Amino acid sequence: MYRGRASAVVRPGSTEEVSKVLALANEHRIPVVPQAGNTGLVGAQIPIGGEIVLSVGRLKRVRVVDPQGFTMMVEAGLTLAEAQTVADDVNRLFPLSLPSEGTCQIGGNLGTNAGGVGVLAYGNARQLVLGLEVVLADGRVWNGLNALKKDNTGYDLKDLFIGSEGTLGVITAAVLKLFPRPAEKATAFVGLSGLDSALALFNLAQETAGPSFTAFEVMPHLVLDIIVRHVAGARRPFAAPHPWYALLETSGLKADGTAERVLTDALTAASERGIIDDAVIASSLGQARDFWRLRESYSEAQKPVGASVKNDVSVPVAAIPEFIRRADAAVERICPGARPLPISHFGDGNVHYNIAQPEGMASDRFMGLWDDIVHAVHETVLGLNGSISAEHGIGVMKREELAQVKGDVAMDLMRKIKAAFDPKGILNPGKVL
Amino acid sequence: MYRGRASAVVRPGSTEEVSKVLALANEHRIPVVPQAGNTGLVGAQIPIGGEIVLSVGRLKRVRVVDPQGFTMMVEAGLTLAEAQTVADDVNRLFPLSLPSEGTCQIGGNLGTNAGGVGVLAYGNARQLVLGLEVVLADGRVWNGLNALKKDNTGYDLKDLFIGSEGTLGVITAAVLKLFPRPAEKATAFVGLSGLDSALALFNLAQETAGPSFTAFEVMPHLVLDIIVRHVAGARRPFAAPHPWYALLETSGLKADGTAERVLTDALTAASERGIIDDAVIASSLGQARDFWRLRESYSEAQKPVGASVKNDVSVPVAAIPEFIRRADAAVERICPGARPLPISHFGDGNVHYNIAQPEGMASDRFMGLWDDIVHAVHETVLGLNGSISAEHGIGVMKREELAQVKGDVAMDLMRKIKAAFDPKGILNPGKVL
Repeated sequence: MYRGRASAVVRPGSTEEVSKVLALANEHRIPVVPQAGNTGLVGAQIPIGGEIVLSVGRLKRVRVVDPQGFTMMVEAGLTLAEAQTVADDVNRLFPLSLPSEGTCQIGGNLGTNAGGVGVLAYGNARQLVLGLEVVLADGRVWNGLNALKKDNTGYDLKDLFIGSEGTLGVITAAVLKLFPRPAEKATAFVGLSGLDSALALFNLAQETAGPSFTAFEVMPHLVLDIIVRHVAGARRPFAAPHPWYALLETSGLKADGTAERVLTDALTAASERGIIDDAVIASSLGQARDFWRLRESYSEAQKPVGASVKNDVSVPVAAIPEFIRRADAAVERICPGARPLPISHFGDGNVHYNIAQPEGMASDRFMGLWDDIVHAVHETVLGLNGSISAEHGIGVMKREELAQVKGDVAMDLMRKIKAAFDPKGILNPGKVL
Repeated sequence: MYRGRASAVVRPGSTEEVSKVLALANEHRIPVVPQAGNTGLVGAQIPIGGEIVLSVGRLKRVRVVDPQGFTMMVEAGLTLAEAQTVADDVNRLFPLSLPSEGTCQIGGNLGTNAGGVGVLAYGNARQLVLGLEVVLADGRVWNGLNALKKDNTGYDLKDLFIGSEGTLGVITAAVLKLFPRPAEKATAFVGLSGLDSALALFNLAQETAGPSFTAFEVMPHLVLDIIVRHVAGARRPFAAPHPWYALLETSGLKADGTAERVLTDALTAASERGIIDDAVIASSLGQARDFWRLRESYSEAQKPVGASVKNDVSVPVAAIPEFIRRADAAVERICPGARPLPISHFGDGNVHYNIAQPEGMASDRFMGLWDDIVHAVHETVLGLNGSISAEHGIGVMKREELAQVKGDVAMDLMRKIKAAFDPKGILNPGKVL
């Protein structure tokens, strides 16, 4: 969707080199686009206006691994998968997990406050960061690399940089939280009659499984159907179709069967109350992986279906069923026959509400409806006190809308922060604000 | 320690009234000190310079309680205990918990990013907030009252206000996270030979009990001794003394004995490995309350012992033993016979490192050593990459030191934020920065 044209790509190998690049760029008012793994979906990392691209991909040092203290300090250019492996190697869990984890990098994960499938139990990227090192627009380095769980010394600068999409500074390193690595997991695929059942099941599982309840993903039959049709090796979990499906996971610190027992108890209770129609608990690691592959093949499976309009939104969890009903109706009014393909990190209130073109329609014609469809979806979201960007950020895609939905006070405060941190406006111009 | 003299106290009854007060004060450049429950320990809420006090104590509406969505929206003047009760009444837990909870108010809890005894499992106040309503210095109202777990729309303004101690805006309402209420708890008091054993026990309990491990407080024999001597009804948990003690708690969502089993398993494993010397698990709610009362009587018990120098610091968890050894030695050099009374939210790396005067010394003479002692303690903290304020904040007490420890870059960014948010400097002048 976005085509960039960089006037140059600089690939510094250290924080000092990042500092020198930015000091020089700032002196000469040369705009710079920070870039990590280049997997962002809203264009924040794209040099739209011919800027210099500053890649953090060579900042790959693992500076400290402290399994006892449950922290590690890594540089911004590690891929998320590499960071997970660093933790894994000392019997710890770094719980951030995204389909793009083999490519996306820590700097981008923090710059965008990435979400993913681990948020239910462990929080967004923001919640996984104890300290940061950031190079400012003028080349000065802010060393906020502490590894403390409590530190009330002045304003929270760290959380200002996280999610600022490279407009306030360039994150070069971070102290990340680690967790005990689960010794066992249990995974189930569940058939549901509707979205209200999904909400009831989520509430029941949260109350019975509590903190051991580590994932809850929801999709309608059409999504599962296109996945099994178009993704090699994907198999239907049930012989008969159900209107909706949920993928549940529980985790346990000891390999004593507790995770599966807790999951079974929750599903048994749900069945007795008529909340679920069918359920299968994975009987092997291979089957659990198969269930997860269904979820992770979502993007891949959409491509053969034709053009699609993409939305990443959130509402309060209890409003998800109402949101999807209203959005489906709104989309049908604008483009009869369009095929909503919502998939949801349900427990986070987050819906990837993508819509595939009607069968047989010309892609161009459907994509011409992008603005109308997105506008209708966002109106629906705002009517339910939701957010027009749950985890993907603003970038260039939602920049104009941001000013409309945030209100004048918030926009004024954000612009003042931007002006204070980057007075010459060299950092990622035209993004976010 | 701080004596204020307010030129007036205004007690607005609504956000609109707070807005009008601040608009007028800003127009006439009249300095304003926001005040909630007035329990802060660093002077942030005191009108040192004759300012107007703006009390949020009349903002007591519970605007929304949503047990299904695990949130509540309350105003800043609710006491923490009242907020806990609102959650309790719908079978939910609001986990922030402090000894002053009967008096301190939500506005102050968030303005200072309060910590307390629930941080190990649930995080600081910051982690418990989904949305905020804030009145700015010029009277404009920022409505950031969303109830979303994911919202990546622009800069994180919310976390900038949290912990800013009333210098960037006045928090008038918040959307707070609720949790499933534990159906059972198990509580143990443990005797330890030393601090290294406390660290080993903490690591073992975290690995075996995981998220059900909800509290871990540590104190030396001298602290327990002054508590049982000076607090009515306080009883020694063991007949024989131990050099150190830990208070452990586990929680479970079902009343099926799991919490106690998990705690027993952890203590049994600790005993087999020689980590603990003795342990008693509370056999009744009354006994559990008695154990907790020992912890909560810490401040009360210090008064009869004479003057004391107070420190609220943090270090990485694994560095706590070394911190206390070094700090004890440093204090002894400055004031032989002074009695360190450290008590620790151990799992948070947070030590309340208070020091009682030597027996028989004049209080005035001891208090004259305040700066020397605090300086030595803070040097020790900084040598271990710690923080000079873990949960109490900066206020006036640590304002001068802040500039010394944060570095020029952080101070410059904070000052720019302050100037952007409160250009006339009317909000809590002389605090934090």
